[in-house]
Amino acid sequence: MLQSKLIGETKKEWPNEATLKSHGLLLKGGYIKQMASGIYTFLPLARKVSLKVENIIREEMNALGAQEILMPLVATKTLWDMSNRYNTVGSELLRFKDRNGNDMVLSMTHEEATVFSMLNEASSYQKYPFSVFQIQTKFRDEARSRGGLIRTREFTMKDAYSFHTTLESLDEEYDKFYMAYNKIFKRVGLKNVIAVKSDTGMMGGSMAHEYMLLCDAGEDKIVTCSNCNYSANMEVAYTNKIDAATIEKRDLEYVETPDINTIEKLSEFLNLDASKLGKAVIYERLDTKQTIIVFLRADREVNETKLRNLLLIDDEDLVPKKPLDTDNIAYGYVGPVDLNACNVTVLYDKSLENEQALVFGANKKNYHLKNVNIKRDVKDAKFVDVSKVEKTDYCPICGKKALNITNGIEVGNIFKLGDKYTKMMKMTYLDETGKEKTPIMGCYGIGVGRLIASVIEERATMDNINWPVSIAPFDIHILPLDYTKNDEVKNVSDKLYDMLSKKYEVLLDDRKKSLGVKLKDADLIASPIKIIISPRNLKENKLELKIALNEQEFIDIDDIESYISLKQKELFENLNKEEK
Amino acid sequence: MLQSKLIGETKKEWPNEATLKSHGLLLKGGYIKQMASGIYTFLPLARKVSLKVENIIREEMNALGAQEILMPLVATKTLWDMSNRYNTVGSELLRFKDRNGNDMVLSMTHEEATVFSMLNEASSYQKYPFSVFQIQTKFRDEARSRGGLIRTREFTMKDAYSFHTTLESLDEEYDKFYMAYNKIFKRVGLKNVIAVKSDTGMMGGSMAHEYMLLCDAGEDKIVTCSNCNYSANMEVAYTNKIDAATIEKRDLEYVETPDINTIEKLSEFLNLDASKLGKAVIYERLDTKQTIIVFLRADREVNETKLRNLLLIDDEDLVPKKPLDTDNIAYGYVGPVDLNACNVTVLYDKSLENEQALVFGANKKNYHLKNVNIKRDVKDAKFVDVSKVEKTDYCPICGKKALNITNGIEVGNIFKLGDKYTKMMKMTYLDETGKEKTPIMGCYGIGVGRLIASVIEERATMDNINWPVSIAPFDIHILPLDYTKNDEVKNVSDKLYDMLSKKYEVLLDDRKKSLGVKLKDADLIASPIKIIISPRNLKENKLELKIALNEQEFIDIDDIESYISLKQKELFENLNKEEK
Repeated sequence: MLQSKLIGETKKEWPNEATLKSHGLLLKGGYIKQMASGIYTFLPLARKVSLKVENIIREEMNALGAQEILMPLVATKTLWDMSNRYNTVGSELLRFKDRNGNDMVLSMTHEEATVFSMLNEASSYQKYPFSVFQIQTKFRDEARSRGGLIRTREFTMKDAYSFHTTLESLDEEYDKFYMAYNKIFKRVGLKNVIAVKSDTGMMGGSMAHEYMLLCDAGEDKIVTCSNCNYSANMEVAYTNKIDAATIEKRDLEYVETPDINTIEKLSEFLNLDASKLGKAVIYERLDTKQTIIVFLRADREVNETKLRNLLLIDDEDLVPKKPLDTDNIAYGYVGPVDLNACNVTVLYDKSLENEQALVFGANKKNYHLKNVNIKRDVKDAKFVDVSKVEKTDYCPICGKKALNITNGIEVGNIFKLGDKYTKMMKMTYLDETGKEKTPIMGCYGIGVGRLIASVIEERATMDNINWPVSIAPFDIHILPLDYTKNDEVKNVSDKLYDMLSKKYEVLLDDRKKSLGVKLKDADLIASPIKIIISPRNLKENKLELKIALNEQEFIDIDDIESYISLKQKELFENLNKEEK
Repeated sequence: MLQSKLIGETKKEWPNEATLKSHGLLLKGGYIKQMASGIYTFLPLARKVSLKVENIIREEMNALGAQEILMPLVATKTLWDMSNRYNTVGSELLRFKDRNGNDMVLSMTHEEATVFSMLNEASSYQKYPFSVFQIQTKFRDEARSRGGLIRTREFTMKDAYSFHTTLESLDEEYDKFYMAYNKIFKRVGLKNVIAVKSDTGMMGGSMAHEYMLLCDAGEDKIVTCSNCNYSANMEVAYTNKIDAATIEKRDLEYVETPDINTIEKLSEFLNLDASKLGKAVIYERLDTKQTIIVFLRADREVNETKLRNLLLIDDEDLVPKKPLDTDNIAYGYVGPVDLNACNVTVLYDKSLENEQALVFGANKKNYHLKNVNIKRDVKDAKFVDVSKVEKTDYCPICGKKALNITNGIEVGNIFKLGDKYTKMMKMTYLDETGKEKTPIMGCYGIGVGRLIASVIEERATMDNINWPVSIAPFDIHILPLDYTKNDEVKNVSDKLYDMLSKKYEVLLDDRKKSLGVKLKDADLIASPIKIIISPRNLKENKLELKIALNEQEFIDIDDIESYISLKQKELFENLNKEEK
């Protein structure tokens, strides 16, 4: 198309509101427009990209035999009550009433809807296994949407659901999706995506993987081992062994620590490394109003996901405890010995298990207790795993100290759900012997917008989006110098445009702008093939070609069509070649 | 694909809840599943159809140069306040609050969102004219959804919006869409679609057409003239001249009519045709609490759309008046002479203009007044057009008595919006001289689900959906007799399936079912090409072919591929040939 007609204008300045590269570039390039917090319009450039991404996903889903369906965004409370999630999911599930006063939700995921849609549609074992998928709108009322398309409230998602009569069949299909996902990420140009074990969270089920794009912009923390294949989301990462920092047993000893009520102050006051101190982290759980005190070594942090999973606490019900005068807790001096708080759950992290002599609060203002040994000093203390893995820990699989902690963006996830939804919703099939059985399920998601933003995060510089050939909005960008002034340039450009448009999606910059401005804009539109047409090169019958990020080349006009065909093929081949 | 794996099971019985053919067939064929009132899942068969329909629409939109975008479903009150529609649209606009207490809506149309999305993205006159479109989810909280996919609450719609600097440019683009729409309807297999002038309603603007599929299942009434091209939705249809039924002037005369308080009774009591009587229809307008009395000839009906437009009353504010003892109205005996009701707007329909001697109520219980002549008996009476056109009226264009009134389903609409939205939302561009101007708009909609249901309403019988080749879920249906028992049948079927699947979407009925059951189901899946394979025909090296609704043919196995290729081409050609 002609660029003078393209809707979506490039901005000269970096957008103030953009903290992430992808967010800034999408706004600067005229791809998206914010309509409300976490809600965007995809302007033509972004829609072109998203249609291509959707198509790649659709092809891979069809290839593994999943059947496409389309479920509604709006669902009833009745449906979500069937899984009890209407009550248990937090306020990210948007609840509202329709005109007749019925309670409804905007679906953020479709397990219930899928099972309901499948009721009576797969009543014989012969239909199994099968998978269905949709590419559809979701709404998740995030408290804090962020980073442009990285975390939005309304988004397009491919979600797939598989149904099985045996666990083996679920394993097989799970592996198929696992492989299809790797293919999808490759095809959209992502390299550093790894699948990590993750928390099953509100979905339930027995096993889950997240596909993580390792990159600085990610808000997830990923633990990987450089010696073996271990990888996990920090939320569920663990270690089997923590070296003790204190190895000599000594007797308990009070020490006066006036106004020393933080780990930093205590460490300085006693001149001891944090690993030789213990700390208490205090929470309140809103559902039962109980206080939770977690004791752990002071150089480690509480892993709240593990903590919630251990105590079966919903996301929103675990909050830091606000100090109260009346609750008999010596804030700043809380310790495991002689703790007399009421209505409290006390947990001992396994980082304390082998420590012989840590310093803890003495449960008395301005006093600490030295040489605490939990096994010795706390009767029947049980140790649980509620702390975050540290870079210096042992890998739980190979046992080597070779862990890395990297930021990651979740670009996809797959879950083995088991029979959680099918059982609660009474979905059944008849087996070979005519007996009613409950099928088991897997589910598999990829967010389209986030995937697009992730491609930018990994591939772009601050000026150049550098789309891969597979999802660039245009295949070829023709950039003429003096298009509106020089007849020969215009002639050649127009002819080339007509010729190439028969086979490719071509954008011709017909605007009355300097070549400098055109090239800047071109880096934002980022066609993998750019043809620069200037009067000087035309004299030698040459065109300037720029393929992806390569150096420019000068090609004879007569050779251009065959050369481009060759180069485009190469670009696609490179994409499939690129190793993770 | 193999039919044993296809999700969505055919039902033996006609579904009780289905009143419309399309609704019943979609349920019976396993195409859709109701999730809530007016909310459906598209199972694989329906999704296949809708993807094809979406693709046809997308192709035609691209062909006229519209640029695809994607806007969100969820919008803010702030956005809808910009056009004042947050307040003026009725409760079909679903309003809710997000987790932070912000007022939001589920968009039922996207004029505001489009203008907002375009702000600053088309700031120079050079970008004009341009059009954008999306294929996207909408929600309209219908009080009564009905007829399966004919009127749903959540639906996929193609909506397009054009922007112009001149009225001529809007006219040109409007014509382009007009033509593109005709092409779309042809391509999806609809024949009896006509474009009729319609009410602009809540959209505003200067001109609107609805595309109406003429068929019994329609809930709209369409007026057409069989002598000229006049066609209009009943809501806006008019006539220029109504023959008087009473032509002799006489003096007013009271007549006692005990308990004669309906037109039927009065007509019988006086032995007069309804055309010689007058009637009063009484409304209340909720916004101002005024009473509205419409007088018209008793054989005609009030056209409430015209009435609302005349008095500028919102949809929901006009309701039939409930009789009250205190309002000084002699219900059943209301007439234009000596009417003493308070706070009342009185309208005289133009059906009364030339009547010389009608019988009306006498505003006194049990009395009527004969020989009423409004012009003579009511001071300064003005006549307005608020009655429905009748089949026996004169065509307003050619003047002939050749009107027809048919039922129609609205399958698309186009509006000239003018500057209603751009002005209120302060969208501007710079013209050639650098002056700020307000662009004008058109908008253009087609609902995907309703279009699919309409195709069924027009083409199907009660047993056979009869899809056109362009949107059938599968191109070819292979139906073997004894597939699971007869090796030769299985062999031939499998080979044929493999061969044809390379070029077509093929469904192979591999189920252990009788041919009778298979053929019944096949009529619901309605592939335009069916191949029936039986041991008997195989002996003669023949296959039985059924193309669309034609008689079956017997074709040599070796000729089948080329024959099918020919027939499929013919089916597509016929579709484009078919005249409206």
